[in-house]
Amino acid sequence: MCPDTLSRPACTDASPVAPLLEVIGADTLVPLVDGRTVPYANLDVAASAPALAVVAERVAQVLPLYASVHRGAGYLSQVSTALYEASRRSVATLVGARADDVTIFTRNTTDSLNLLAGAVPGRVLVLDIEHHANLLPWHRASGGATVVTGAPTITETLDLLRAELARASYALVACTGASNVTGEALPLADVVALAHEAGARVAVDGAQLVPHRRVDVAAAGIDYLAFSGHKTYAPYGAGVLIGRRDWLDAAPAYLAGGGAVRSVSADGVTWAPSPARHEAGSPNVIGAVALAAACDALAELDAAAAHAHEDALRDRLESGLCGIDGVEVLRVWADSTDRVGVVAFAVPGHDPGLVAAYLAAEHGIGVRDGKFCAHPLLARLGHGTGAIRASVGLGSGSEHVDRLVEALAAYLTDGPGASYVVVDGCWVVADDPRPVPDVSGLSGLVATAAVANAAVAGGCAPGA
Amino acid sequence: MCPDTLSRPACTDASPVAPLLEVIGADTLVPLVDGRTVPYANLDVAASAPALAVVAERVAQVLPLYASVHRGAGYLSQVSTALYEASRRSVATLVGARADDVTIFTRNTTDSLNLLAGAVPGRVLVLDIEHHANLLPWHRASGGATVVTGAPTITETLDLLRAELARASYALVACTGASNVTGEALPLADVVALAHEAGARVAVDGAQLVPHRRVDVAAAGIDYLAFSGHKTYAPYGAGVLIGRRDWLDAAPAYLAGGGAVRSVSADGVTWAPSPARHEAGSPNVIGAVALAAACDALAELDAAAAHAHEDALRDRLESGLCGIDGVEVLRVWADSTDRVGVVAFAVPGHDPGLVAAYLAAEHGIGVRDGKFCAHPLLARLGHGTGAIRASVGLGSGSEHVDRLVEALAAYLTDGPGASYVVVDGCWVVADDPRPVPDVSGLSGLVATAAVANAAVAGGCAPGA
Repeated sequence: MCPDTLSRPACTDASPVAPLLEVIGADTLVPLVDGRTVPYANLDVAASAPALAVVAERVAQVLPLYASVHRGAGYLSQVSTALYEASRRSVATLVGARADDVTIFTRNTTDSLNLLAGAVPGRVLVLDIEHHANLLPWHRASGGATVVTGAPTITETLDLLRAELARASYALVACTGASNVTGEALPLADVVALAHEAGARVAVDGAQLVPHRRVDVAAAGIDYLAFSGHKTYAPYGAGVLIGRRDWLDAAPAYLAGGGAVRSVSADGVTWAPSPARHEAGSPNVIGAVALAAACDALAELDAAAAHAHEDALRDRLESGLCGIDGVEVLRVWADSTDRVGVVAFAVPGHDPGLVAAYLAAEHGIGVRDGKFCAHPLLARLGHGTGAIRASVGLGSGSEHVDRLVEALAAYLTDGPGASYVVVDGCWVVADDPRPVPDVSGLSGLVATAAVANAAVAGGCAPGA
Repeated sequence: MCPDTLSRPACTDASPVAPLLEVIGADTLVPLVDGRTVPYANLDVAASAPALAVVAERVAQVLPLYASVHRGAGYLSQVSTALYEASRRSVATLVGARADDVTIFTRNTTDSLNLLAGAVPGRVLVLDIEHHANLLPWHRASGGATVVTGAPTITETLDLLRAELARASYALVACTGASNVTGEALPLADVVALAHEAGARVAVDGAQLVPHRRVDVAAAGIDYLAFSGHKTYAPYGAGVLIGRRDWLDAAPAYLAGGGAVRSVSADGVTWAPSPARHEAGSPNVIGAVALAAACDALAELDAAAAHAHEDALRDRLESGLCGIDGVEVLRVWADSTDRVGVVAFAVPGHDPGLVAAYLAAEHGIGVRDGKFCAHPLLARLGHGTGAIRASVGLGSGSEHVDRLVEALAAYLTDGPGASYVVVDGCWVVADDPRPVPDVSGLSGLVATAAVANAAVAGGCAPGA
C-alpha cells in the first residue's frame, strides 16, 4: 500500500548490493529467540551510525599522541592541538564552507542548534516537519520562533514559507536537509532563495543530509550547517556547527568557562572570538579527530557511486515494503523526488513497537519505532501513535534490506513466533531467552521505552 | 626557594617509583631539537590525562556493539542503551552517590557546572581560587554569584566563608575539591558543615579530585559533584554531574531537543525528568562507557596504594623543585596539608613560556605554562603573568619527575641550548627542526598561544 509515486515493480530478483565502506560491527552476531545467532542487520543508521573502520583506525592511531589540547607546551600537546585544528579543516572542506566561516565543535546537532539559537538576532521561521532538535531550540532564540504547518506538496509548502516571510520579519529560516522520518527534503536552493530575498539567513539541519549527500555550503548559499558525528560514522561524541562569524562573535559565550575567555579579573571577563568563544572547557579531541576522519572518508568517496548505492538500497527497500499488503509507506510531500535512505512505514492495525520487537527478536534486524523525535509531523501525517523506520547507509547491503522485507511479509502472513508483552510501555519478548554480551556492568537488555522512567534515564518516551 | 612548610631534603637518591597503571602513549617517543627521540614525559595530566589501557580496551570491545541508544528496538540498540545506563551506575558507585542522586552525562566539568548554574534557585558563593569553570558559570545563575577573595590560610578562608554565609543568603557554595594550580584544597567536611548550617548546598568541582582521591558523596554530604572524563583517564568527550534531583527536575532543560521531552505538540512541550531532561540529542555512549571503564578501574585500585604513589611522586617533584635555586613553588594557603599531584612553580626572571618550550624541545617534557584558567588566583598570588605547572597521575613514574628537576636545574645553570622566538605571543623553537607525526591532516605543530588568534581557535589566551 503506497503512494502512486512510489509504485514500482518489486525487486526480489535484483542483484545483490554490497556495503560501500567497512563499518565496525558489520559482522557482529546477535542472538535470536530461537537460539540461533545471525549477523546484525542494522537498519537504524539514521538514528546513529556505526563507526567506519577508517575512523576507528584513526582514533587508534591518535590515542597514543593524545595530550592536553590548547593548554600545554609539550610536544604531544602541540600535536594534539594541531590535530584538533586540522579536524576543523577536514570538516569544513567536506561541506564546502566559505574561507571565513567558523567551524565550532559541539556534541551533536542538537547542541549545535541550541548554540545557534543563542546567537540569532531576531525571530526564527521553521516548519512543523522538523526533528525536535531543529524545532525546540528556536523557541529559545531572542526573537522567538514561528512554526508553520507544512502542506502536502513541496510547491505549496514553499508558498507557505514565502507568504510567512512576506508577512513578518525573520532573522533565520531553519530547515532540514533531509527529513529524519521520510528522507525527503525541500529543495534547499529554493529555501535559500526565498529566505535571502526576505533578508533572512538559512540554517540547515544536516544531520540526515551530510551522511548521505555532498553538501556545498558556499555554493548553496547556506548560512549555517549543523550535523552530528554519531550519524556520520564517527560515534565519538562530537558534532559541528559551521557558518558565518558575525552572529557567533556577537553572541554570549555558549558555555562559561576556561578556554572561552581572553582574561578574567575582578573588573570582568573578556571573551574570546569564535570558535573558542563557544568551546569552553577541554574539547573532545578524539571526537573531533574521529569526525574529521569520517569527513575525509566521505570526501574521498565517489559521490555519484555513493548516491547510486543509496538509491539502489532505498528503492529496493521502498519497493519491497510497497509490495507487501498491509504496509503503508509514509510521505511528507506528494511531489518530492530525491530522498535519502530513510523510509518510515506503518503496519495499520499492528503496534509499531510489537513489529519492531519481532524484527529484532526473530530476525536480528534493528529498526526504530515510535515518533522519531518529530511528534508534530507524525501527528499531522496521521501517525501520532508512531510508525516504524528503516534506514540504510554506507555500511548497508541488500541482504539487510531483503531480510527486513521478507520478515515483514512473514509477520503479516504468520504473525510473530514468540510471545511479546508490554513492560513499562515497551514491547519486549516474554521471558526473553537471549543472552547479553559479556561486557563489564552489563546485566541485561534495556528496551527503548523503559528508560523513559524517571528513575532511570531518558530518550524518546514510549512511542516517541 | 620554597615556603618553609615545603622544605625537605632533596630526593635524588630516592628509589624509583613506577607507574601504577598502564596508560596509552606511555611509550610514545617524541623528537628533540638535537635530533634525538625520547619517551614523552607527560607532566600535564592535570590538564588532560591519557587513556588508561583498560579504557581503550573497553572502547574497542564495545565499538562493534554500538548502535542507536534510547532509540531503537534492535538487539544492539538495547545493548547500547544498557551499556549507557550501566555507565551511570559505574560512575555513581565510584563516588558513593546517594541512591536517589541523578547522574547526568555532560561533555566535561565546565559543561556540568554550566548545567547546574541553570538549576540553582538562588545566589551562589564562590572563592576567587577557582578554575574559570567553577567561577564564570555562577554569574549565570538566576540569583547571580558572589566571589569572595580568599585569605592566605585555610583557617582564615573558612572564616571568610562563614562570615559571608552569615551576611547574606545563598542557595549554593561552589568549591574546588583540589586546586588545579597547586593541588591544595579546603577541607570539604568543613565547607559542607558551614554551608549546610547556613542552609546552602555544596557543589564540588571534582575535576582534580576524582582522578586523585576516593570521594564519598553521600558520606561527605556533598550535594553536587562534577568531573571530567578527560582528566580521569577517559578522554572520549564525556563528563558528569551527579547530585540531588529536586533542583535538576525543576530547572529548564539544559538543551532543547529530542530525548529531553515526553511529548511535543502545537499546545506545547512536556519535558522529561532528569537525567533525560538535560541530555537532549543522542548521547555520547562511547564517552560514557569510557568514563565508566575508568571509574571501574579507579574503584578497583587500592586507594591507599594510589595515594602513596601520588604522594611519593609529588614529594619528589616538590622537593626537587625546592632544591633548585631560582625556582619558587606556589601555594594558596600556608596551612594546607593534603595536596594532590599538581605543583605550580615560577622561575622569577624567566618567562614561563620560554621555560616550558625549553623543557619540551630539549627534554621531551610536557608541562603547562600560563595562568591555568585561574586568572584571579594567579593575580592574587603575584603571578598574574603566569607560571609553570607540573602534574602527575596514575601513569606517571619518577623518571619523568627526575627528568624535569634535572632539566630545570640545567636551564638555570646553562640556559637553553636552542634558539627560541615569540610567534603570535607564544614561545617556539626558531626554525623548529622537529618532525611531526605522520597523521592525516597534520602539517605542523600548533603552539598553545597561537590558537588564541581569532582566525584559528581558542584555548586559554597567551599566558592564560
